[in-house]
Amino acid sequence: MDRRNIIDELSVKTDSKIIMLVMDGLGGIPLQPDGKTELETAHKPNLNKIAVRSSMGLFDSVAPGVTPGSGPGHLGLFGYDPIESNIGRGVLAALGVNFPLQHGDLCMRINFCTIDSEGKVTDRRAGRIPNEECVRLCKKLNEKIKTPQGLQIFLTPVKEHRASVVLRGKNFYDDIEDTDPQKTGVLPLYPAAKDPQAGADTIKILKDIITQAKKILSDEKKANMILMRGFAQYRQFPSIEKRFKLKSLALAAYPMYRGLAKLIGMDVNWDVKTLDDQLDELEKQYNNYDFFFIHIKYTDSSGEDGDFARKVSVIEDVDKVIPRILKLKPEVFIVTCDHSTPAKMSAHSWHTVPTLIYSDLCRPDGLPEYDESNCRQGSLSRYESKQILPLAMAHAMKLKKFGA
Amino acid sequence: MDRRNIIDELSVKTDSKIIMLVMDGLGGIPLQPDGKTELETAHKPNLNKIAVRSSMGLFDSVAPGVTPGSGPGHLGLFGYDPIESNIGRGVLAALGVNFPLQHGDLCMRINFCTIDSEGKVTDRRAGRIPNEECVRLCKKLNEKIKTPQGLQIFLTPVKEHRASVVLRGKNFYDDIEDTDPQKTGVLPLYPAAKDPQAGADTIKILKDIITQAKKILSDEKKANMILMRGFAQYRQFPSIEKRFKLKSLALAAYPMYRGLAKLIGMDVNWDVKTLDDQLDELEKQYNNYDFFFIHIKYTDSSGEDGDFARKVSVIEDVDKVIPRILKLKPEVFIVTCDHSTPAKMSAHSWHTVPTLIYSDLCRPDGLPEYDESNCRQGSLSRYESKQILPLAMAHAMKLKKFGA
Repeated sequence: MDRRNIIDELSVKTDSKIIMLVMDGLGGIPLQPDGKTELETAHKPNLNKIAVRSSMGLFDSVAPGVTPGSGPGHLGLFGYDPIESNIGRGVLAALGVNFPLQHGDLCMRINFCTIDSEGKVTDRRAGRIPNEECVRLCKKLNEKIKTPQGLQIFLTPVKEHRASVVLRGKNFYDDIEDTDPQKTGVLPLYPAAKDPQAGADTIKILKDIITQAKKILSDEKKANMILMRGFAQYRQFPSIEKRFKLKSLALAAYPMYRGLAKLIGMDVNWDVKTLDDQLDELEKQYNNYDFFFIHIKYTDSSGEDGDFARKVSVIEDVDKVIPRILKLKPEVFIVTCDHSTPAKMSAHSWHTVPTLIYSDLCRPDGLPEYDESNCRQGSLSRYESKQILPLAMAHAMKLKKFGA
Repeated sequence: MDRRNIIDELSVKTDSKIIMLVMDGLGGIPLQPDGKTELETAHKPNLNKIAVRSSMGLFDSVAPGVTPGSGPGHLGLFGYDPIESNIGRGVLAALGVNFPLQHGDLCMRINFCTIDSEGKVTDRRAGRIPNEECVRLCKKLNEKIKTPQGLQIFLTPVKEHRASVVLRGKNFYDDIEDTDPQKTGVLPLYPAAKDPQAGADTIKILKDIITQAKKILSDEKKANMILMRGFAQYRQFPSIEKRFKLKSLALAAYPMYRGLAKLIGMDVNWDVKTLDDQLDELEKQYNNYDFFFIHIKYTDSSGEDGDFARKVSVIEDVDKVIPRILKLKPEVFIVTCDHSTPAKMSAHSWHTVPTLIYSDLCRPDGLPEYDESNCRQGSLSRYESKQILPLAMAHAMKLKKFGA
């Protein structure tokens, strides 16, 4: 048995339920060395009530010291090795707009931008054109760009000046530098392959598409050019249902997290907007799934904004709905996050993530609160986030005994 | 991305500074089961003052239960896998005398020894001849030993009866048994290859050198023979600057640690003798480097001497200079050791090593003292020593985000 597939091999289908509440970027650090983290500051009676009966720990999202993006952050929580299953921005963008990707597709993100008469970039975001403009421009390029025999191109609007582009029909190379020069007053860069020999074919196709796009957009006032970035080929992963026998539902309000869930074959609700929507859906679909992923965005976004107080208040809001979730009596309830986003840093960080596993079968740590300093003393200790789902499955009696 | 190179790939050059204070052999155990370790016993107000604001943990130098030599002990601290990058004593000895090694050199240590008329060893250390004698004898052998076409031999005096020998010019085999019989009254051993087939060429050369040396030294009164040990081929490692973008300075008073630092391409100060020298140099060179390795030998040597009280007093002396180091305001200050050397055992041991990371960006554990029992409760938990440098780099903002 391959060590890496041990959980896959041991997993069994049962009726038990696992609910994973991911408060994105929840982990924090104090603003002052002798202060408290956001989670330590928050008033959270409901989380504390279950903390005392839970097993807790602090997990590394990827590896000690490594700050993860949202992709590896979540893939780890879903039991996938975050390094082996790393995916690029382009793939994430396509998944986020629910584009039906096929294995081998070359994905990238584009910005519509403005260039002057010499071709130099004057606005990397084309004045943040409205969404409707983006829709119109994508349609225009989809209709007019001519691809070589056997190749297809698909532009899908994302938001404002941003779109997702997918190329299909060839064995593409994807280790390619962005064409976004990251500043104005200069020409867009050429798409350059890190290994020029291996990438020659793909680069030729991309250059031709850029030339065509420039011509097609030349009558536009603002969005008269495109910048490409985040090149990445889509590889289909074995689904969470195939690997762990978990029929899974993602309840996330933001496209990227829906995309990540879809990447591993979760069913995705494409309509939920608020926490209330998410809980309504959880209740409605409770009998139809084994694993529920509930994603809270605002802990991360308030952290990224450097707004300590708002992050505290988001945690307090989430705390209020805990009883509603527990009313469903899931066999396992997990509260964790994909990575820390300390308000002090206004960014994702490498700090370990506080994790709580609440189950009738856990060995309760008897610690009084759910926060970093209590998780530090918890029995789950410090481990890798990809161990969280296997632990949850064990507590849900979804793993067979290993060996005779 | 190769899992093992993830830190290399993510590392970026910045202006921030990391100071790593290595108190060699710092970790200990109590003399009596209900007693305290050396570190727990020591009065160390300055280390305790920063402990409360640090992240702490206990790290395995190599693997649980494995007692490391100085090589793997330090290579782990420098972020190198201590098992994969293990090097032999011979290489360490050559590095310690600042010999300009080339990739592929076969290194060994020799002892000058005394043999009787039958060739039997009567003193394995030739009466610990003075250093000047060693210099003269090395010169004599360098001049008189004849090597086959294309081969070169270099003897460098180390100290008393000890010298470093380097053979150059061939693809050598190095899995060879020592010729030191480890007792007197017997003949020196032959250099024996563990795989006789693969090693035949190298063994022939070594035997010829031993025969010549015996003849050349036959007119000496004390040092009339050599014993060889620690055969090891030198492989050049990718430097710490190439791997982690850390321009690094080693401030160590002992040759072996300078050699270890040089092995991974650190700049080495070859003059510092005392802790004061080390701190003077640290202050002088502070703007010229990203990473400073300060090595304290006497915690280890007092431990090896089984002198608990002296080890405590060395720790207390080091504690006194902490404010001087912190005055430089390094972004990250680490206090740790390469392995434990409990005075109770008078030897290196496998016990985990107390580690403290002090930084404005750490998540403070709020623990009152820097010692083994507090480190055990720290958030860094128990990990591998090769994770310490990546953690330090993260806190110094020297690692990019991983994944989208």
